[in-house]
Formats: sequence, C-alpha cells, structure tokens
Amino acid sequence: MSVAELIEGVLNQKRRYLARLISLIEDEDIRALEALSQLYKHTGKGHIIGVTGPPGSGKSSLVTKLTTEFRKRSKTIGIVCVDPSSPFTGGALLGDRIRMQEHSLDDEVYVRSMGTRGHLGGLARATSDAVRAIDAFGKDIIFVETVGTGQSEVEVIDVAHTVIVTDVPGSGDDIQAIKAGIMEIADIFVVNKSDLVGADKKVTEINAMLDIDQRERAWRPPVLLTNARSGEGILELVDSILAHLEHLKESGLLQKKGLQRSRDELQELMKYKLTKELSQKLQGKPEYENAIKMIAKRKQDPYTVAEQLIAEFLFSETR
Amino acid sequence: MSVAELIEGVLNQKRRYLARLISLIEDEDIRALEALSQLYKHTGKGHIIGVTGPPGSGKSSLVTKLTTEFRKRSKTIGIVCVDPSSPFTGGALLGDRIRMQEHSLDDEVYVRSMGTRGHLGGLARATSDAVRAIDAFGKDIIFVETVGTGQSEVEVIDVAHTVIVTDVPGSGDDIQAIKAGIMEIADIFVVNKSDLVGADKKVTEINAMLDIDQRERAWRPPVLLTNARSGEGILELVDSILAHLEHLKESGLLQKKGLQRSRDELQELMKYKLTKELSQKLQGKPEYENAIKMIAKRKQDPYTVAEQLIAEFLFSETR
Repeated sequence: MSVAELIEGVLNQKRRYLARLISLIEDEDIRALEALSQLYKHTGKGHIIGVTGPPGSGKSSLVTKLTTEFRKRSKTIGIVCVDPSSPFTGGALLGDRIRMQEHSLDDEVYVRSMGTRGHLGGLARATSDAVRAIDAFGKDIIFVETVGTGQSEVEVIDVAHTVIVTDVPGSGDDIQAIKAGIMEIADIFVVNKSDLVGADKKVTEINAMLDIDQRERAWRPPVLLTNARSGEGILELVDSILAHLEHLKESGLLQKKGLQRSRDELQELMKYKLTKELSQKLQGKPEYENAIKMIAKRKQDPYTVAEQLIAEFLFSETR
Repeated sequence: MSVAELIEGVLNQKRRYLARLISLIEDEDIRALEALSQLYKHTGKGHIIGVTGPPGSGKSSLVTKLTTEFRKRSKTIGIVCVDPSSPFTGGALLGDRIRMQEHSLDDEVYVRSMGTRGHLGGLARATSDAVRAIDAFGKDIIFVETVGTGQSEVEVIDVAHTVIVTDVPGSGDDIQAIKAGIMEIADIFVVNKSDLVGADKKVTEINAMLDIDQRERAWRPPVLLTNARSGEGILELVDSILAHLEHLKESGLLQKKGLQRSRDELQELMKYKLTKELSQKLQGKPEYENAIKMIAKRKQDPYTVAEQLIAEFLFSETR
C-alpha cells in the first residue's frame, strides 16, 4: 500500500486504511511518518479525552457508557486503549474485544488497542500518532484510555485536551501516594462504583485535596460519582466534559495547550530522529562494539565514550 | 564542592559526599557526570537487587527485613526508593523515613528516595546513576525499590542483577493483565502477606503461568511465600537471592548482562547528550519559536520541521 493510497483511504474514512496506518505507526514504518506528515493539516478537529486511573477503577466500562451517550448525540468516536505495562509481550488488552461488543456493529466507533511491542520511539509517541491518524480520519471524539497512574501513563495521556482520572472507593495508602502525582493532570475526577461503601467519603477526600491546592485557577476539577454499570452519573460526566471543552476554548487555553503540545512534540520528534540516525550509523561498527566491551570491563567509562562516538560518527562529515 | 572533592569523599565512604553527589545527579549538574565518569572504574562490585510489584504488596517491609538479614551477615546496604508516579510534585515517598527507622542508626545502611523532579534525562537515567554512585561508595548490596509495574518501573529496575517481583493474595483481573508484562523480568516471585486468604492459590497461579512458558531456561524463578511482618520466608528469600547471583556468575549471564547494560547505557547517554545539545542550540531562536506556531496552526507539520531544524542547527557548522 503506497503512502498516497493510505492518505486517500484515511481521508475517505475507510476503516481498513486507518487500521493499516496505525499498524505502520506501530512498526515504525517510514511510510507512517510520510503519511502523517501529509495528514497533519487535516487534524486538530477531534476532542481528545484521556481516561486514566488505577487498575480496576472501571475505565473501560466508563468509556463504553460515554460512547453510548455521545453516539446518541450523533458524535463519531475513536478509542485508543493503551497498556504501558506489557513491554515484552505486547498485543491487545485482555477482554478488550469483549467489553466493546456493545459498539462492535457501529461503524462510527473505531477501537484500537496498543501494547508496547516495537515503538522504539516510545509508547507515547506511537499513541500520539495513532490519535492523530484517527483525528485525520474525522472522528469527533477520541478517547485515550490507559491503565495505571505512573509516569508512562502521564506521558500517554499528555495528548488529551480533557483528562478524566478515575478512582474507586477504599483504595489503600500506597495508592494514595500514587495519586498525588496525577492530581495535577486531572480536569475531571470520577469516583466510579458509587454503590460501594466509602464512595462519598472518597469524593470528600478528593475535594479536600483540591481545597489544599491554593493556586488560582479558572477551572476547578469537578468530582463526580458514577456507576458505569447502572449508568448513574454518566450524563453529568458528559456535561462536565463539554463544559471543560467550552472552558478551554473561552479561556484561550485550548490555543495555549496547542502551542505547548507543538513544542513538546517537535522536541520529541527531533530526539527520535537523531537517535535513529545515530544508531543506524553505529550499527555493526567495530569501534562501537569494542567500546561496549571496554565499558563492561570498566576500562572506559560510558559518559566519555558517548561524547566521543557522537563526535566521531554523527558530526564528522568525512565518514 | 569540586568534582575532585566529591570523588574523594565518595571513595572514602563519607555519606555526606554521596548524598551531595546524588543531589547533583538529580539536578543534572555537570559535575555529577564528571564525577561519575571518574568513579566508573570503581563500580561493578555491588549486587543490585530490584524490587517491584503493585502498590500495597509490601515491598518496603520486605526490603527492611532483607536489610536486617543481610546486615547480620555483615553486608553493607544501599537502598534507592523510586517513585515514578510523581512527575510533578517530586519529593520523598510517603512514610519513607518512618519505615526505615529500624536502620536509621546504622551507618552501613544508606537510604535515598528519588521522585521525578528534574531528571530531563529521565528517572531511569537518574536512578542508574544514583545506584552507580552507591556502588562506587562501596555498598555490597543495593536495593532498587519501585512502586508499580508499568513501563517506567521496568526501565528503572533494568539496572538490577536480580529482580524480585512482589504480589499479594487476591488481586483483581485488571492487575492480572498488568502482570503479564513483568513476568519476564522476574528472577524471584514473592507472594507477600502469606497470612491472607488466597496466598497459596496465588503461588499456584504464578507457578501455572511459569509452566505455560515453554522456553528453555537454566533458571526457573522460584515463587516464595513471605510475611514481611512476622519474618516468615525471609531466610528462604535470602537463599534464593544468593542462589540467583551464583547462577548468574556460573552461567556467564552476569557478564552477558553486563555487556547488554553497557550497550543500553551507552545508547541512552548518547541520546541524552544529543538532545541536550540540540535544545541548547535551539533555545530562544526565532526560527524555532516561529516553527512551533506554524505547527500549532497546522500550516507546517512537525515531522518535516523536525528534520529541517536538525539539519539547520545541529549539523550546520556555519551557525
């Protein structure tokens, strides 16, 4: 499949071409970058919603319910499920296909799982490109769902305009510690499984944490109680999502975030391209292999060798 | 404090100098790299033990008990506690100081927490350098403890010779999915809190997962039941740790892993240095700022601009 065919297929909303493009992104095929580069001007229209939170906090069911609700409002949907915890095995999330059965016959809902197979450039890079492909394809709303609350999840979710952080009643101390880091990226908090004991207490706790934060802010993240199974609180969540988008637009933050994202992405891409170029140049070079042995033997140190190799192989035009 | 003083202080086992060096590492101070580069030949002696697993699985108590046991055997100990989940707030882990009180008067135990504050080069890079500093300082055993089981935790733990993966009885389906990814990095499994219902079942489950894996391997990870509170199973764990180190030595894997680590680290360092150099050169340049605006407006695409900026600012000698 040529780059031109890929681009045409995606712009004509053919799912098969979108699937192929995302596979090429995952494989870091050169055609993916070429296609994305040309598709870029068709992006920037979708509302990207990140959903993250600890394991078992019902992210998948929440996204399914939100999809149902947005479909009623004639919005088209893309869903990217990211699992940063499988660096070796890759592949789809467990139960992924099962849970999206509700929308499997709906052509206006596109679901894609991403493991970490391949992705020299990192999972965040691949996710960002996959979201962009879906954006160019024309989906109105794109969910990025990721398990967990670690650094890599934060990077993955960084692509989103609106970030929903999910939690469940009664999580332990250790999990509390985790949440401190993610408090700041949340635009909306959702305490899911509202039927469990301690749900109201959890809402109070999160609100208390928000109260401590004395910074001035135009948007205070709402803390919502939901029950993805019964559907309780889903409408309020949809309202909050739309209100947040409105806030981003009115406050000028949408534009500001766009600039920041362009800056971050440009840096990431330059880093990626440089690393790739250098590793191609070093591949199989005896000086390189020898240096590695000397480092392992502690006869040379990696800090000095890194500088030497860069000077010799990347900046020397004579080679 | 000069680089020479730092080096001398660390080699003479002055804790204050070690603490200072690790702070410089965290701040990405140029002196840190200089010191590490010269300290490198004094490293490679410590046994680095990674401890990871889901929140609440008792990693901290386990490390405390192991420390007590290794101290009885006159081993000196370093502990690096890493929290990859706090990208914004940084700082020490909750309860960190409290839990290590048991060893706080013992000069032969050095404990250090690392958040993700700073660390342009990444948390894994900073952790690896901190472990190296402690190694040069002369600690016999260095624990690297990290919360969670995501990609970033795997990267952090990558520095270890022996990886212990902890778990507790009765974790949900979602957590099961997480574990698939770290099965392959575990050298020893520990089911902690053996007094909880389902502990034996969990041991059976992990063993069943190991049975499925049909690859040939000289080391089959043992699955141990422990109770960090009562001390049950700690001696067996120590035996397994020592047996694993022996296995690494006898099989030649220790050397092989050392080579692989040198290769990985060299690559990481080159990447780090290149990125740093490029961002210094781009800082404040009007072409750069303008390109970011054009990307945000979708008038240029980041893929093409990244290549142009690299060619123009990094490879052009005339600037």
